[in-house]
Amino acid sequence: MKLIIEKNSERASQVAADLLFGKMLSNRRVNLSITAGATPICTYKILTEKIKDRSYLDHVHYYNFDEIPLRGKDQEDGITMSMLRKLFFDPANISEKQIEKLTGANYQEQDERIQKAGGLDLIFMGIGADGHFCGNLPKLAHFDEWTVKKTAEDCVKIQPNFLDMMLAETINAGFSPEQSGDYYVTMGTKSVLQAKELLMMATGKAKANIVKQAFWGKVTEDIPSSVLRLHPNFILLLDEEAACALNDEERNILY
Amino acid sequence: MKLIIEKNSERASQVAADLLFGKMLSNRRVNLSITAGATPICTYKILTEKIKDRSYLDHVHYYNFDEIPLRGKDQEDGITMSMLRKLFFDPANISEKQIEKLTGANYQEQDERIQKAGGLDLIFMGIGADGHFCGNLPKLAHFDEWTVKKTAEDCVKIQPNFLDMMLAETINAGFSPEQSGDYYVTMGTKSVLQAKELLMMATGKAKANIVKQAFWGKVTEDIPSSVLRLHPNFILLLDEEAACALNDEERNILY
Amino acid sequence: MKLIIEKNSERASQVAADLLFGKMLSNRRVNLSITAGATPICTYKILTEKIKDRSYLDHVHYYNFDEIPLRGKDQEDGITMSMLRKLFFDPANISEKQIEKLTGANYQEQDERIQKAGGLDLIFMGIGADGHFCGNLPKLAHFDEWTVKKTAEDCVKIQPNFLDMMLAETINAGFSPEQSGDYYVTMGTKSVLQAKELLMMATGKAKANIVKQAFWGKVTEDIPSSVLRLHPNFILLLDEEAACALNDEERNILY
Amino acid sequence: MKLIIEKNSERASQVAADLLFGKMLSNRRVNLSITAGATPICTYKILTEKIKDRSYLDHVHYYNFDEIPLRGKDQEDGITMSMLRKLFFDPANISEKQIEKLTGANYQEQDERIQKAGGLDLIFMGIGADGHFCGNLPKLAHFDEWTVKKTAEDCVKIQPNFLDMMLAETINAGFSPEQSGDYYVTMGTKSVLQAKELLMMATGKAKANIVKQAFWGKVTEDIPSSVLRLHPNFILLLDEEAACALNDEERNILY
Repeated sequence: MKLIIEKNSERASQVAADLLFGKMLSNRRVNLSITAGATPICTYKILTEKIKDRSYLDHVHYYNFDEIPLRGKDQEDGITMSMLRKLFFDPANISEKQIEKLTGANYQEQDERIQKAGGLDLIFMGIGADGHFCGNLPKLAHFDEWTVKKTAEDCVKIQPNFLDMMLAETINAGFSPEQSGDYYVTMGTKSVLQAKELLMMATGKAKANIVKQAFWGKVTEDIPSSVLRLHPNFILLLDEEAACALNDEERNILY
Repeated sequence: MKLIIEKNSERASQVAADLLFGKMLSNRRVNLSITAGATPICTYKILTEKIKDRSYLDHVHYYNFDEIPLRGKDQEDGITMSMLRKLFFDPANISEKQIEKLTGANYQEQDERIQKAGGLDLIFMGIGADGHFCGNLPKLAHFDEWTVKKTAEDCVKIQPNFLDMMLAETINAGFSPEQSGDYYVTMGTKSVLQAKELLMMATGKAKANIVKQAFWGKVTEDIPSSVLRLHPNFILLLDEEAACALNDEERNILY
Repeated sequence: MKLIIEKNSERASQVAADLLFGKMLSNRRVNLSITAGATPICTYKILTEKIKDRSYLDHVHYYNFDEIPLRGKDQEDGITMSMLRKLFFDPANISEKQIEKLTGANYQEQDERIQKAGGLDLIFMGIGADGHFCGNLPKLAHFDEWTVKKTAEDCVKIQPNFLDMMLAETINAGFSPEQSGDYYVTMGTKSVLQAKELLMMATGKAKANIVKQAFWGKVTEDIPSSVLRLHPNFILLLDEEAACALNDEERNILY
Repeated sequence: MKLIIEKNSERASQVAADLLFGKMLSNRRVNLSITAGATPICTYKILTEKIKDRSYLDHVHYYNFDEIPLRGKDQEDGITMSMLRKLFFDPANISEKQIEKLTGANYQEQDERIQKAGGLDLIFMGIGADGHFCGNLPKLAHFDEWTVKKTAEDCVKIQPNFLDMMLAETINAGFSPEQSGDYYVTMGTKSVLQAKELLMMATGKAKANIVKQAFWGKVTEDIPSSVLRLHPNFILLLDEEAACALNDEERNILY
């Protein structure tokens, strides 16, 4: 684990944007999987400046790592892809042929599709307050999963408020309540750990506790992100607020 | 996980030897960590033929990934290194300066030493009947460990027969009972998963059940090897006997 | 340049086979480009033993790096592919879908096709007595070429005996004289140097002088192979006979 | 060759800074070799902002690729290192232990030292109006050179104004004329092409002709930079002025 602590979230966002842009400047096809959500908003603004209308970046392909399909719209953009478009693909003017969509319909092909395209060069993720990454939620996710579908049927047994969570995501993304679906798909732990490099960014005090638990505590399925530190090229990018629960020894890890 | 099933243990040993030799044929320094024990005996015989007295392989460095020091001999060859010499370093005439010893005395430097040397290119391991790899035993090892020391004091609480295990290893390696020590050191799960590539070989019927459990069952600290399949470049090499508990679907995994 | 000198051609062939096999044992798609001709006959025999009917090698793809089409047969197997089949693909039972044919008709797509497939992992080549590699002949080839077509029209100006050379190749490969074509296609120097690793094997006294000139002399288009030593991962594999013109200092190069 | 054309030199400098910074954000030791001179001034200003006092970049090591020692000061900072300190190491507060000095005294160890440190991850270079890169000047440099010393004795035969060139460099760097030395050392073509990635930046109209000649003309020792395009990971970074001699076809190269 490479630990990077920057003074504030703006600087951390700059580092994330630079790292993403640096990966793109390659001689070969580049495959990136990137996160929607609140954490990367500033990163994508900086990145958009760097990459908008640069034809020399046509060899970069973008993958969403999870999707929450809207009701009855398995093959179309769901909540994740809609947010990625709004936050990044639309402002950065990314061509449709560079967007490699994971949908409710094609999730079973996701891992093989990525493998055949040469693997993911980088996955850029955030961490949930409960320690989840991508759609790998505590109790619902297992370390040995490839890309999976999680249905209300299966989930309510373990997370009784599952449909409420789905509804909240739907409304939060600007859709109407009746569009809320009853399942989601996500790359599993095994899928994610196949990537060549992993970048997780966390900013703000609200993440301080889970960051400490996830990366300095036990590796356990109860905190899905805890497993990421086993990857040989994992970068944890924090601002001072997200790092505020760490003591000196923890901040000075070598790797 | 790349699954390779060969007809018998001779052929599997040949594949392991070829893979190790292939890694050595590089333009740069090569760092290999290799296993002692019964599984690789035939592999090392084949490999010795290929590499003995080849000066063009002087850039290959060998690391032991665990060590059981003899009583009062922290800085010297222990059981693992003694066996590696007998099985491989001596017959292959490997120069002393290519051997990078992990001992009871220097284990705290192991991970940084490897990092500074560019990381391990490959770790070649076997699996124990209880699912252990290197010195990572069920109940004693945790997924978040770097190279660690495990003392009798700590271990007997969890494995009451710990000192008997140490004694058995000592006698099995040809040392006298009174030389048996009271601790061992091992690269932990995190250390091992930092390597660029992992090769695990298992042969014979006695391994069939643990192989199935470890690599097609749950990822759990109760079966330490189960975590290896999360590594992006993990090769599992079996003979038909070790693969005999797998059904067709399990044998046909893509990766 | 990594220099490997083995005692005789059998041992050198064994090293080449092991290196090729080692490259195949990967978790990802592997792209190899391999040579026809006399030099690799023994290598392919050894390799066939290792890989025949191994379904775990289905992810390996084979590319020919040059082709001499038969008269009027632009889209079909030419001399190179016919020889590769006889020497290796047929005895090793390689599936048609693993064979990525370069033909007289598709040569302009070769470089992009390879780039899109993730690049070549290894090119296995021999050296001609005149210092050529692939179809890059002295005076006809330039260092800045991608995959090219060389026609009789262009070539006779520089190599007056060009059509005789083509005829000799045709007859040598077992075809009738009237099948001899009037052009060939080859990956150029730039194409070849894009690969991740290059292996050149030379055996026998007849190669001793050109080996010394090409790899210890000047880098020049007059000896096309001389440029290969500029590649960051170039392995030169010789037997003692091919190395017999080298003095001690030359044999002891570090890299 | 990956071609990147940015609108103006500020944007090109930004891309160079981002690419350099991106390379630094790794889990392992990073070895960079970087250029002095006028071209990178703006790049180093941007980069300094990003990296100054970031302890998480302590694993980055910096190498100068050439040196012009001052008279009688073989083991000390020469013109190149003095300029690198002024332009970058001092403002960015780079620790002395991250600076790996090439001097007039240790040049014969440069290639092995780099090899043992895992090789260079990136070399950042400019191009001279005569097509030189690093200290590889037309007529004086050969494609088959490792790190070399070029003395006035050898050079005046080929470049009669050699001592004037040295003097001009000395004065330009702010030293007094009598400090001007009579030799320089430089990584040769072979040394440079061993790196994992090469970045060459050229900005301004004055570079337009040599850029076209070097990268779209013949590969020849008369224009030393022309050989760089043979490297599998070569990035050519231009602003519109430096690209102004290129026609549409030349601007649209795939790689």
